[in-house]
Amino acid sequence: MPSYVTHLACPRCDRRHEAHVPQNVCPCGSPLLVEYDLDAVGTALTKEALAARPAGMWRYRELLPVASDADVVTLGEGDTPLLRPSALGFRIGLPGLRVKDDGLNPTGTFKARGASCGISMARVLGIEEVALPSAGNAGVAWAAYGAAAGIRVHVAMPRDAPAANRIECELYGAELSLVDGLISDAATAIARTVSEHGWFDASTLKEPYRIEGKKTLGLEIAEQLGWRSPDAVVYPAGGGVGLIGIWRAFEQLARLGWISGPLPRLIVTQAEGCAPLVRAFEDGKETSEPWSGATTIAAGLRVPHALGDFLVLRAIRETGGTALAVSDEAILEMVSVLGREAGISAAPEGAATLAAALALRETGELDADDVVVLVNTGSALKYLDLL
Amino acid sequence: MPSYVTHLACPRCDRRHEAHVPQNVCPCGSPLLVEYDLDAVGTALTKEALAARPAGMWRYRELLPVASDADVVTLGEGDTPLLRPSALGFRIGLPGLRVKDDGLNPTGTFKARGASCGISMARVLGIEEVALPSAGNAGVAWAAYGAAAGIRVHVAMPRDAPAANRIECELYGAELSLVDGLISDAATAIARTVSEHGWFDASTLKEPYRIEGKKTLGLEIAEQLGWRSPDAVVYPAGGGVGLIGIWRAFEQLARLGWISGPLPRLIVTQAEGCAPLVRAFEDGKETSEPWSGATTIAAGLRVPHALGDFLVLRAIRETGGTALAVSDEAILEMVSVLGREAGISAAPEGAATLAAALALRETGELDADDVVVLVNTGSALKYLDLL
Repeated sequence: MPSYVTHLACPRCDRRHEAHVPQNVCPCGSPLLVEYDLDAVGTALTKEALAARPAGMWRYRELLPVASDADVVTLGEGDTPLLRPSALGFRIGLPGLRVKDDGLNPTGTFKARGASCGISMARVLGIEEVALPSAGNAGVAWAAYGAAAGIRVHVAMPRDAPAANRIECELYGAELSLVDGLISDAATAIARTVSEHGWFDASTLKEPYRIEGKKTLGLEIAEQLGWRSPDAVVYPAGGGVGLIGIWRAFEQLARLGWISGPLPRLIVTQAEGCAPLVRAFEDGKETSEPWSGATTIAAGLRVPHALGDFLVLRAIRETGGTALAVSDEAILEMVSVLGREAGISAAPEGAATLAAALALRETGELDADDVVVLVNTGSALKYLDLL
Repeated sequence: MPSYVTHLACPRCDRRHEAHVPQNVCPCGSPLLVEYDLDAVGTALTKEALAARPAGMWRYRELLPVASDADVVTLGEGDTPLLRPSALGFRIGLPGLRVKDDGLNPTGTFKARGASCGISMARVLGIEEVALPSAGNAGVAWAAYGAAAGIRVHVAMPRDAPAANRIECELYGAELSLVDGLISDAATAIARTVSEHGWFDASTLKEPYRIEGKKTLGLEIAEQLGWRSPDAVVYPAGGGVGLIGIWRAFEQLARLGWISGPLPRLIVTQAEGCAPLVRAFEDGKETSEPWSGATTIAAGLRVPHALGDFLVLRAIRETGGTALAVSDEAILEMVSVLGREAGISAAPEGAATLAAALALRETGELDADDVVVLVNTGSALKYLDLL
């Protein structure tokens, strides 16, 4: 199978970059996005052919960057269920409620999608060691896929990240550094080590392929709804990569003519104790300011500054979405509601989307007729020390 | 869609029982097995039609007992990956090694399959409250599916079951009793409460449908291998329901003509500290004796006596399989090997199968040419307090 990737594009300064060599960010500082020959994809792939393929995110191969099967590093990521918790949906006035349960991925979070794609491309590009900072979950996912691929992974994460993440990094044989501070401090530590050792910097959005894995979240939602867009997707944003991926998924599907009508309204939720994207959205800004004193029980949302902030804000505004912060109390309550009323194992980040949906239903920004997809980014099993 | 279930059959005394009313065991004390009109199934279902269906264990609907879509209680169980950890396989002299990673199920274990089917049938039969003893994982799975279905679940489990199981039962709103002792003591407590309160007894193999959910493990393995039988399946047996289910899956597929040649050799592994089935197999017995002083870190294997022991022993012998015990030290080492060399998150029970495969490769009972499937029954995330 050929790769349909044409180049990497800078979404800030529009410069084009070569796709078949290791790349980090654009000289202008922006993350790079992977571009495809969608005309050729549209000729090569039909919905029917896709429907007959086995499960897993690599079934969307024409819209992913890896050309050869032999390079795909898979642990069975993707094809997570789009649940319909009817009783809960009716009770809260959103009978069309869906939950995309991405906790059912390897390593228990949606980070598996990005790690599968990122590590596969590292193999394609001949990279032997990668390093990344992580609020916790991404580090574990890259550690697992690195172990599967025989690629050495170095992770730096906050000392107070959930205990599960530390234990799992060790389980997968990654080199783990615990940092006093936040993911931003871990990033500083990683930046130093990569230049010292010549490792590849796989930090969020500093390598272009993680986002392509996350894109499959959007592809799956569209396919699971019978190639229709939901009215809204509610997404808990730390670095925001998944939201950018979902946005690009629906854009590419629209350009392929596989879906019609408006794109889903992309709604971002963050924690009140760390809401730089929400503040930027409310202030009408195109980029966010680093949040000082970030604190929330939802470890994945404790990201004081996102490199892709301008893309997240663009995705929200171009789709008519919104952004709102929710309290840690509401998050914890919604973990319990999802468990007791729907049997869903939700990480605090995922539960935040239900708190946001409730608030938006109350203000009328979400309607009783809306098909609303909540993205549950992880399993509650990752947070047992909290629960 | 019709149900293709014809009746429930007693595999010990051959008595037939009505399928459309709540049933527990046969008056002779044996578990009951669900029988299908396989001729009708063979007419209704083709491999091609199946290939085009969406992911999830309910795609095998004609071989499952629930007739109406509305009764299916699903959290996205099934369609777990059949991984091929090539580097590990080559290193240990089993290049055809596969791992069926059933930790990627809702609630993190293969118990989700049985609970989805059992709770769905409880809904069909109008049952409003169920009770079951559990070594830990089954209780959590039934709690989650009960929450999804609005069916009240009462669980009794050993006080020293892994902490995750207690926290999760509470998350899903089940009523949890902690018992001093083993699953057998929990079973005594449950037997008392069901007769007091009129709850349905959903103990392992005391209701006929859990096994049908587990059967999909075998159906998936066959489909994922391109409708071929592997040479061997290595399964970690506590109650042994999954093994019986896998056996029945391959038998039914052979009767449908969807696979040919010998059934896979079914190999059971247990922990040295609790190996009643292994002892019975070695002694040439048809049933097992209760194991006294059962102790192992693999909580799911700490089952001193299995109601379906005679079926497990039959499955092993009729397929030319074997049974062997492995040490807790070997189990812990294999958790680490699966993590570091393959990126696989294995529960101790699942890791026991790798210890068993290594031993059988050494004795020559497994051959370098064999396609060997290890069943990883759960995620390491359920055992973080151990790791």
